[in-house]
Amino acid sequence: MRSDCAVANTLDLVGDRWSLLIVRDLLATTEMRYGDFLGGGEHIPTNTLADRLKKLEQAGIVARELYSEHPPRAVYRLTQAGRELGLVVDAMATWGVRHLPGTRRITPGA
Amino acid sequence: MRSDCAVANTLDLVGDRWSLLIVRDLLATTEMRYGDFLGGGEHIPTNTLADRLKKLEQAGIVARELYSEHPPRAVYRLTQAGRELGLVVDAMATWGVRHLPGTRRITPGA
Repeated sequence: MRSDCAVANTLDLVGDRWSLLIVRDLLATTEMRYGDFLGGGEHIPTNTLADRLKKLEQAGIVARELYSEHPPRAVYRLTQAGRELGLVVDAMATWGVRHLPGTRRITPGA
Repeated sequence: MRSDCAVANTLDLVGDRWSLLIVRDLLATTEMRYGDFLGGGEHIPTNTLADRLKKLEQAGIVARELYSEHPPRAVYRLTQAGRELGLVVDAMATWGVRHLPGTRRITPGA
């Protein structure tokens, strides 16, 4: 823990270039399989995806549920805490649309 | 540019563990000198601080103004675009206070 600042500790969990894009994708649906994340416009590297999903699960932001044991396959959902990150994602979308020309709000799966 | 998603492009600018803490500090004041950032509870490494300030200036989020030529000394302020990141920082503070026990809203300088 770097300090008791709520912003610093939130950034320790989602302060990177990818975690909030995973949250963005999950906000638009009820559940996703691993491969569903790979089809986004940003082309997340698969080892980065595996790492971020694991960290988001450990942080209580994403829940993972096995739907097949052989072979092991899982679906991912946002927890309630994860859904509440929607306000952070939304604030970033609003800022980006306003200040970064050529960007737009993405609705995943649309 | 990874995609035309406003969230992805915002993360390209401030998606790291430190940039939004610099914005947090600047939100609470009118201007800061370089050394003022080093006194925060998170102890940002000085080379990381120099890198992030330069990137935030290039992104139009922070404005740098020299107040002495010999030796060169500068003050840093948020631009209007930078101030509007306050909504992102505020959403992170709200989320952190709610979901990360032991954290609180920090008012820098308080």
